[in-house]
Amino acid sequence: MKPKPSARKNDLVSRIGEFGLIERILSKFAIRDKRSVLVGPGDDAAVIACGEGLRLVLTTDMLVEGTHFRLEWSCPEAVGFKAVTANMSDVAAMGGAPVGIVVSLGIPASIPTRAVDMLYRGISGALSKLGGEMLGGDTVRSERITVSVAAIGTLAGERPLLRRGARAGDEVCVTGSLGRAEMGLLLLERFAGRKDKSRGSAMRAWAARRITDLKGRIPSSVRGDGYACLRKHLIPEPRMRDAVLLARQGKNAPSAMMDVSDGLSSDLRQIAVASAVGMRVYEDRIPIHPSAAGVAGYLGVSAARAALSSGEEYELLFTVAPSRLRDLMRAMSRADAAPLTVIGEVTGSVAGLRPGTVSLVSAGGRRSELTHRGFRHF
Amino acid sequence: MKPKPSARKNDLVSRIGEFGLIERILSKFAIRDKRSVLVGPGDDAAVIACGEGLRLVLTTDMLVEGTHFRLEWSCPEAVGFKAVTANMSDVAAMGGAPVGIVVSLGIPASIPTRAVDMLYRGISGALSKLGGEMLGGDTVRSERITVSVAAIGTLAGERPLLRRGARAGDEVCVTGSLGRAEMGLLLLERFAGRKDKSRGSAMRAWAARRITDLKGRIPSSVRGDGYACLRKHLIPEPRMRDAVLLARQGKNAPSAMMDVSDGLSSDLRQIAVASAVGMRVYEDRIPIHPSAAGVAGYLGVSAARAALSSGEEYELLFTVAPSRLRDLMRAMSRADAAPLTVIGEVTGSVAGLRPGTVSLVSAGGRRSELTHRGFRHF
Repeated sequence: MKPKPSARKNDLVSRIGEFGLIERILSKFAIRDKRSVLVGPGDDAAVIACGEGLRLVLTTDMLVEGTHFRLEWSCPEAVGFKAVTANMSDVAAMGGAPVGIVVSLGIPASIPTRAVDMLYRGISGALSKLGGEMLGGDTVRSERITVSVAAIGTLAGERPLLRRGARAGDEVCVTGSLGRAEMGLLLLERFAGRKDKSRGSAMRAWAARRITDLKGRIPSSVRGDGYACLRKHLIPEPRMRDAVLLARQGKNAPSAMMDVSDGLSSDLRQIAVASAVGMRVYEDRIPIHPSAAGVAGYLGVSAARAALSSGEEYELLFTVAPSRLRDLMRAMSRADAAPLTVIGEVTGSVAGLRPGTVSLVSAGGRRSELTHRGFRHF
Repeated sequence: MKPKPSARKNDLVSRIGEFGLIERILSKFAIRDKRSVLVGPGDDAAVIACGEGLRLVLTTDMLVEGTHFRLEWSCPEAVGFKAVTANMSDVAAMGGAPVGIVVSLGIPASIPTRAVDMLYRGISGALSKLGGEMLGGDTVRSERITVSVAAIGTLAGERPLLRRGARAGDEVCVTGSLGRAEMGLLLLERFAGRKDKSRGSAMRAWAARRITDLKGRIPSSVRGDGYACLRKHLIPEPRMRDAVLLARQGKNAPSAMMDVSDGLSSDLRQIAVASAVGMRVYEDRIPIHPSAAGVAGYLGVSAARAALSSGEEYELLFTVAPSRLRDLMRAMSRADAAPLTVIGEVTGSVAGLRPGTVSLVSAGGRRSELTHRGFRHF
């Protein structure tokens, strides 16, 4: 039965979901100046040509209290740091190097100034580590703490590394290893303690908290691995340097790239859909961080599943032609980059499967379709 | 009595105020690459040198439900439009021309999709009118509707038009006329009707509302002027073209410039403080929009006061050397720009007065210090 027009008009965002919403928004905008706007909305970041071969990268990401972080499970410094990371990772994922950020901060009037100081310390710390300048911002009153950052960068290589460049036959690779971010969050969910009674006391406690203070909440028998996961969840560092190295490999550069922000399974699908290809990924090749495995064992959950669903990992996920792989890996290893792992391959559109389908092959050889298991906003 | 350190630590943002907070934030960041970052935080927008004489302008502004707009008094299209205006006005105030925007949107899952459609229609409409492309964004779940925009542009003239360039003897000028934005808001406050009972029904009503629907709430005897004020409050248009014209006047270009966003009296002070000068402004020279005067008369409030305190006017406030004024005015008038009004002059630091002091001279010749009467966030 088709819904009546009036019923459709009353549809809520929760019914069309995050990706449906994004599609709907994108359909409303067409780039007018196609000579300048090399990459518009829909990828990790936009790319704009600005005279004399300079290509700018521009992106934005917003963290909202209650959605991206909870006062009880975080601290201001970590929130500031992560707001920068989320943006810089998008700059990196296009093959860009950072230039700077602007920050819009929404805060309640009853927030302790110490919280604001520490939040900006986190922002400043992230800029020192990842590169880029603090260029400006806006501070407004808001019931819930909201940190919206926009970052600009410049393209490091000859061309932007898009999601839509994957070709049948390409190898699928990921930097580093996965799983810690989700395990860190899970530890907080299990052990972070109860909610503060009043918002005032929750905000005071949040303002006074430091990253190390949260360590004490992890059971002692898993504290080493647990703290590694907690740090990854709270103050993740994107692969700024590796992204620039990858972008500068000329003909050996990735055919497609994005950052692991929603979770590997969701992000693999993004590349597959954007490139109109299929993918086959081997479960036992997905690199799991030892600390993630340690915490997963302690909590009795599957580390392999965590590696697939863990968002905010900020590793780089890319595809590369098989004939280029060896040279690329050698160059990256020589430059002392993070280890690269081939986790699968790009397939053509398989008969009977929609383009964008990602198959997961288990250790026993069993195939299943990888469903979207990453973080969803709506 | 000096506060104890522990007491200071527990200070709330509401105690130091918006400008205190901004000062505190700025003190934590130093620009590292001074060759590239021509203007850092603290002005309307940042300016970055990007090779070959290209200078980029970057800014951000966030609108939050409950702070900048209320569901009962607005509609999604207006919120989208104004979020773009606030940013583009900052680009213009530096003497920049728009390139594009990125948008971070925070919305509850229970929002009707129609509201999101209309909000983006407002954004799209603003870009069509003001220039610039939709380059990307982020959509996240948030209890309160939050629209954070970052805009980039390029500098149109030889140098950025800063707040700190005013010199003793300069004339103080403003484009267009003032007062409508505050009168529009006041009309809504008086006549917009009661709050919806549930958030769900408030959101549905907001989603269905159009700019013209709010017209019916204005008493019929003042509806013409009232709707002019309402439109200025809901969908204000910054002086994009005039800003570029002003910036391109070479040696006749303004010595300092900013946009009227917090209210004339607050913004005059911003220029005076940044330039370490005093100012004298003549009350009867401040241009009041006839519709603002009409509504003020109807409501029984002072139109002159409204012209001083009305924020979100997005007119251009600037200073210019007296020897350059005539040529500048002639050039602007020839280019069919908005009328310019000289409202006062820049004075040196007057003995006994702090730098940054703005004196208001009444029609009767009485002097008073203009206090900060614009919109304050904390």
